Amino acid sequence: MSTGIDLAVSTVIFALRPGDAGRLVLSIPLVRRTRDPFEGRWSLPGGAADATESLAATAARKLAETTGLAPAYLEQLYCFGAPDRSPSGRVVSVVYWALVRADEAELAAEGENVRWFAADELPQLAFDHNLIVDYALWRLRTKLEYAAIAHAFLGPTFTLAELRQVHEIVLQRALDPANFRRQIESSRSVVPTGEHVTGGRHRPPRLYRYDGSVQLVDNGPLTSVAVR
Amino acid sequence: MSTGIDLAVSTVIFALRPGDAGRLVLSIPLVRRTRDPFEGRWSLPGGAADATESLAATAARKLAETTGLAPAYLEQLYCFGAPDRSPSGRVVSVVYWALVRADEAELAAEGENVRWFAADELPQLAFDHNLIVDYALWRLRTKLEYAAIAHAFLGPTFTLAELRQVHEIVLQRALDPANFRRQIESSRSVVPTGEHVTGGRHRPPRLYRYDGSVQLVDNGPLTSVAVR
Repeated sequence: MSTGIDLAVSTVIFALRPGDAGRLVLSIPLVRRTRDPFEGRWSLPGGAADATESLAATAARKLAETTGLAPAYLEQLYCFGAPDRSPSGRVVSVVYWALVRADEAELAAEGENVRWFAADELPQLAFDHNLIVDYALWRLRTKLEYAAIAHAFLGPTFTLAELRQVHEIVLQRALDPANFRRQIESSRSVVPTGEHVTGGRHRPPRLYRYDGSVQLVDNGPLTSVAVR
Repeated sequence: MSTGIDLAVSTVIFALRPGDAGRLVLSIPLVRRTRDPFEGRWSLPGGAADATESLAATAARKLAETTGLAPAYLEQLYCFGAPDRSPSGRVVSVVYWALVRADEAELAAEGENVRWFAADELPQLAFDHNLIVDYALWRLRTKLEYAAIAHAFLGPTFTLAELRQVHEIVLQRALDPANFRRQIESSRSVVPTGEHVTGGRHRPPRLYRYDGSVQLVDNGPLTSVAVR
């Protein structure tokens, strides 16, 4: 019925990776295109939709094939379908996104055609992928303010200083430590583990974890979005 | 490239319409299918994507053709792509949604094959359209609590009682009038017009309007989602 429309799937992955001088940088992995259109340009990992696979499964498979990354879940971001977004015919792209921890990001393949970029220093990407990343950044920043997703960047336990740092990097502004502590503690989504950071410090910081009853991805009645 | 996948566009429209005993009922318009698959079943208005039109424009056109409705904006809800959602081959559906005022809803065509249904009393619909409506309801209820979209159901001016009634119908619970008033007034998205309801009442209720600086649909960097 929809003759002449190709369906593609792409993924925006965010991680906090060490940059210059050890500062953490909000980063995304990109793949260099090896054929037209946009041969040589960097682009989001992805490819053609598969007739027998769910969209999320295709997104996960393409991501693993190109970057080696395997996030525990992907959330659908948006479906991009402007008629002029590809010069070689109509392509509608369903875009997924995920956050990965720094140690997961370390496992990603890097090479001539796969590289991490700072999210706010991207080159001119293929198709409308700059717009897609801008939208993903906006969603990340909007969502971070009301949902407990910052910990997706961290391990199972973390200090409040680490959690605050995640918020500061993503929101691109300094946060008052005392206010941040009050806000997090009143949200009740973060609970003390009762343990402290190990190592010979005089007053080692307390370790916290997210309350397991808080869902990372809340899709309401949609329960079938898991990629595996 | 994505051989064997058809792309469709559908729309969920919500309106508050008078039901039995004058009570307002959260309602959606459905279209009866006149061919297989699911011939005779009710379904969301929609149809095949068009190779030259934006997805939102196709959604708006199909909606106008079948129901006569023309919402001022459509927001993308989700892209549904489970491999088994259509018995006649793979169909991926990009779903839009909108809220319309009661007077707009009155203009909708109704007939043998187009009818309004109470959102919580739907028959078994074609495809996965019951799941789609459940998800749209969940999004509406979630969003109503943090965004100022209730007034999309109302005209340009309204009383606080009318606004509270919209919230009560959608959230399916009674709200305390005094608490509701405080919450709305502190949100600063609703401002008094300085006028009152006309008619010979001793203490006519004040009229309010939404602050024009509050966007109905906030899509961040996506500015191209308007349907016309």
